[in-house]
Amino acid sequence: MKLAEFDVWARAGLESVEAALQAWVPADAPAGLGLAMRYGVLDGGKRLRPLLVLAASQAVHGLPEAALRAACAVELIHAYSLVHDDMPCMDNDVLRRGKPTVHVQFGEAQAMLAGDAMQALAFEVLTPVDSAQGGVPPSLQARLCSLLARSAGHAGMAGGQAIDLASIGKPLGEHALRDMHHRKTGALLQASVLMGAACGEVGAAQWAALSDYGDALGLAFQVVDDILDVTQASATLGKTAGKDLDNNKPTYVTVLGLDAARRHAIELRDKAQAALARSGLQEAAWLGLLADKVVERDS
Amino acid sequence: MKLAEFDVWARAGLESVEAALQAWVPADAPAGLGLAMRYGVLDGGKRLRPLLVLAASQAVHGLPEAALRAACAVELIHAYSLVHDDMPCMDNDVLRRGKPTVHVQFGEAQAMLAGDAMQALAFEVLTPVDSAQGGVPPSLQARLCSLLARSAGHAGMAGGQAIDLASIGKPLGEHALRDMHHRKTGALLQASVLMGAACGEVGAAQWAALSDYGDALGLAFQVVDDILDVTQASATLGKTAGKDLDNNKPTYVTVLGLDAARRHAIELRDKAQAALARSGLQEAAWLGLLADKVVERDS
Repeated sequence: MKLAEFDVWARAGLESVEAALQAWVPADAPAGLGLAMRYGVLDGGKRLRPLLVLAASQAVHGLPEAALRAACAVELIHAYSLVHDDMPCMDNDVLRRGKPTVHVQFGEAQAMLAGDAMQALAFEVLTPVDSAQGGVPPSLQARLCSLLARSAGHAGMAGGQAIDLASIGKPLGEHALRDMHHRKTGALLQASVLMGAACGEVGAAQWAALSDYGDALGLAFQVVDDILDVTQASATLGKTAGKDLDNNKPTYVTVLGLDAARRHAIELRDKAQAALARSGLQEAAWLGLLADKVVERDS
Repeated sequence: MKLAEFDVWARAGLESVEAALQAWVPADAPAGLGLAMRYGVLDGGKRLRPLLVLAASQAVHGLPEAALRAACAVELIHAYSLVHDDMPCMDNDVLRRGKPTVHVQFGEAQAMLAGDAMQALAFEVLTPVDSAQGGVPPSLQARLCSLLARSAGHAGMAGGQAIDLASIGKPLGEHALRDMHHRKTGALLQASVLMGAACGEVGAAQWAALSDYGDALGLAFQVVDDILDVTQASATLGKTAGKDLDNNKPTYVTVLGLDAARRHAIELRDKAQAALARSGLQEAAWLGLLADKVVERDS
């Protein structure tokens, strides 16, 4: 029952995100740049980050227009990071979301520019020029930009990728692995929750609880990602399976072993749920279900 | 006299920008990322964009803290674009600001990540978390993010680079060349002026005049860049000279010829000065001198 309701809510939310991205990622950007950007972000992915933004915003009765913009902005950042991450100088991957990667389809230079332009577009989306039309108070625009920039930059996603890069072929302890993932995947997932929360009114204790929820969920997501990388086929994942092993990268599975990694994912989910309960938010059911889904997913 | 005064002002302004960048571009970002970012942006370049921000802000009695942040943010965007532009899949250049380029020094993957993190950092710098400490009103933070994102993205710099990429080896008319440079270099130079102006109070007519000034100055800068590329040695430029010709790229010199390009640069400077006069701003002397310097520079 609850799950069916969630599905209806999630479908409606993602339809609005998809429509907004269709409208905001410009097909007519010069010299094919827009086509490469659209290829990189439209019609693909689980859209977990936008769902987290929308669910968190709903839990705090956030401004819908702001939440929609935040949802699109985090997805643009996530999608740009995949475009750059797949390039030959990084992971050199040819398959993503079941399609050839952007650089395979459009060339390396265009892929790099498309990623760069997608990052800029995320901040454009958060700062509508005509605030009468946008309906997002400027102070909220600034807050959302601040949260997004910090999660995407050196202290967050880009920093995590630098550690990832440096760790290839090196033994990494659980602590160092956790630090890497806190930044690489965790920061943007946590920011998704907090950007959604920023769209409404939340007290300091609720903010801290949602921050803990996002933190645990972000790590759980990565642990499951590492598990799926060794247990699932490429066709199911829509991306190249087993590539962490092939690239000799440390993962939760190589560090903890498969069974302990599975137990750890469950622990982290429980931690996320406990944080959510601590928030005292009455309408946080979708956030709770999202934590379940992150751990139970098979792709 | 005026020129000596300008030099004193510019030196003081750039010292504050350099000190702020030293403080804000983190040496301790993980796995060498911070070192690559610092290498890419510190101690180099003419810092024309920061000077435009500071001069425009001064002309409108702008908030100094906001202008300093805007100056650093535009320079971070400019520097990241150079890091990416120099990579093998783009211009494949080995010399920049008299030093080996970032990817030569740190590897391609780190260079890409450093550029990505520098773009994010630009928006971090514009949105200080502790607004009591930052002293920049949130609405101004949002306005600055909006101006910067739009000048850096698909409609601005990144879009211009896509046109540049697509134009290699193709004949380009003056109109198409102008459109490319409006975006590739012009947008960020114009945004520098407007971000500085946004730090104070300006009416619509003044805003339009400053926008025209930035537009003409941006094109003048590129025309002169094209001239210097064929007339100066690499050692003077601190980057590889003659590379547009080598790369078979259309330039103002190839399209107009050297003499006509020189005349065009003067015309654009006069246009910038006329726009400045139209603004009616009493303290715009430094903006006027910067327009002169853009055209008279030899590197």
